[in-house]
Amino acid sequence: MRALKFADDELKIAEVSAPLVDNEALIRVTKSGICNTDLEIVRGYAGFSGIIGHEFVGVVEKSAARPDLIGKRVVGEINAGCGACEKCRAGDARHCPQRTVLGILGRNGAHAEFLTLPAENLLEVPAAIDDEQAVFVEPLAAAFGITEQIAIAPQTSVAVVGDGKLGLLCTMCLALESENVVLIGKHREKLLLAEKRGIETVLLEDAARLNRSFDVTVEASGSESGFATALDLLKPRGKMILKSTFQGRANLEMWRVVVDEISIIGSRCGRFAPALEILASGKINVSDLVSERFHLSDGIEAMRSAAEKGVLKVILSMD
Amino acid sequence: MRALKFADDELKIAEVSAPLVDNEALIRVTKSGICNTDLEIVRGYAGFSGIIGHEFVGVVEKSAARPDLIGKRVVGEINAGCGACEKCRAGDARHCPQRTVLGILGRNGAHAEFLTLPAENLLEVPAAIDDEQAVFVEPLAAAFGITEQIAIAPQTSVAVVGDGKLGLLCTMCLALESENVVLIGKHREKLLLAEKRGIETVLLEDAARLNRSFDVTVEASGSESGFATALDLLKPRGKMILKSTFQGRANLEMWRVVVDEISIIGSRCGRFAPALEILASGKINVSDLVSERFHLSDGIEAMRSAAEKGVLKVILSMD
Repeated sequence: MRALKFADDELKIAEVSAPLVDNEALIRVTKSGICNTDLEIVRGYAGFSGIIGHEFVGVVEKSAARPDLIGKRVVGEINAGCGACEKCRAGDARHCPQRTVLGILGRNGAHAEFLTLPAENLLEVPAAIDDEQAVFVEPLAAAFGITEQIAIAPQTSVAVVGDGKLGLLCTMCLALESENVVLIGKHREKLLLAEKRGIETVLLEDAARLNRSFDVTVEASGSESGFATALDLLKPRGKMILKSTFQGRANLEMWRVVVDEISIIGSRCGRFAPALEILASGKINVSDLVSERFHLSDGIEAMRSAAEKGVLKVILSMD
Repeated sequence: MRALKFADDELKIAEVSAPLVDNEALIRVTKSGICNTDLEIVRGYAGFSGIIGHEFVGVVEKSAARPDLIGKRVVGEINAGCGACEKCRAGDARHCPQRTVLGILGRNGAHAEFLTLPAENLLEVPAAIDDEQAVFVEPLAAAFGITEQIAIAPQTSVAVVGDGKLGLLCTMCLALESENVVLIGKHREKLLLAEKRGIETVLLEDAARLNRSFDVTVEASGSESGFATALDLLKPRGKMILKSTFQGRANLEMWRVVVDEISIIGSRCGRFAPALEILASGKINVSDLVSERFHLSDGIEAMRSAAEKGVLKVILSMD
């Protein structure tokens, strides 16, 4: 099968053998989405080697454990646990110490014609959600996962720093819970996507006037300067959600965290069920977040495009 | 009066006029303690200029608001609020945006013959606590303040990183709540102080074997490498309490915070009442944490001594 593979510091479209099914479900991938983490992996993040990609929708071709899923359109949670540890037994493989992660850690990913995942990771996609929207289930779950970690009430003031696709999704998700969400970013055309949805936005260059006024900030820019902005915007005893993973170290003024007794909370993957519900209900519409569409065979060009300024989601099609 | 003053980048014993009382209580300082924050201020932290010092015990000489305190031996909470804002009205000036802080922010401090503080900041010292122990109320309150911020249960596993005076006090306080506290440090003689109290200790060079095994870590070393150690020791979804303030930036691997969904919680000042209770009950004995004693007039030498390796608390006497 064809796949977008990163190995030996090189990204290429490779012809590889189809995955062995073993005890897992075999999924024919229909579409996949390029995430910033894919771009970071190619820069060396996570030391991953293999087929990249973790946002996908596909159709189940084989599943011994769940034959009822065969022929169904599915999305799949990306962490596959050992099944035996305390975390896995509690039904949450996201922090299983032995986990593999689709296209990120020890497991081939979704920018390919086929992938495998444990059947318990799969969720059927309701008819109300089209394939392109379904590709957003994974990042939307990651964004909505913030509400699993901290309480967001209607009056909680929230600033999201970073107007890329993750920042936009976080903004939309948090605006479902709070009436006081502001998106802060550098790009007028991206901020407009939030404004269209009735969400307040502020250009980064004007953000300093809002310093020390938010209960919660979300760092979704993946940059040192974004971290500093998210810190400056917080009230004393405020909470910063750290959302972006990036390669390398960050140079931070940690004394401010101590003096203002700030909490910084790392946030990675969310559950898929609430994200599917949000998309199916139409509460969040992601269609205008797609910037470009490519065929899998043009995956290299698609990755180049996804790295360009101003580009939001890039979708790969396998057919 | 005589005072240890930092001004124009110079630390000196100065003869200054006694403080004006205004609406505050006048306290004749008996003893004061040198904190690492004093050393950091002399390195430029907080941009403070004036009389340094914020750990003290003294006797009230004047107090219009609380004449009952006159002649009483007191300690004093170091944050003085505006009295009018939301935080102050709730009885907690620690995050009042207009606050002054004894010897740290906009208010002369305790390494002096006299100081003033609002009467409501003062707490009478029970007879069971001698003057030298009373000097520890402020740092002990800061250490015990961790339990105000996060729940520590008997089975919560806690590692304190840094065996200086703050680390030792945090260790002793947390060992009152949890049976699973470990102190990690570089100095055998300091670790012995915890061992004497039945608390497990590990040399920093042997700590890596404990990586990813603690629910909570406390960063009390005030160094970049201490932060990295405190991060390495945490389980996924663990909590790091950040206790030390230091000048400058820190270079940190923040992606690990995201992937393991770590919470980092800044922690500064605690309430004095529980600390007084702990000292009065004898649950914590601080007497062996005093390394050196100086008269105020030898304050420069005392500061030099406090900065030396292996030295714990340095006490200044005013009489």
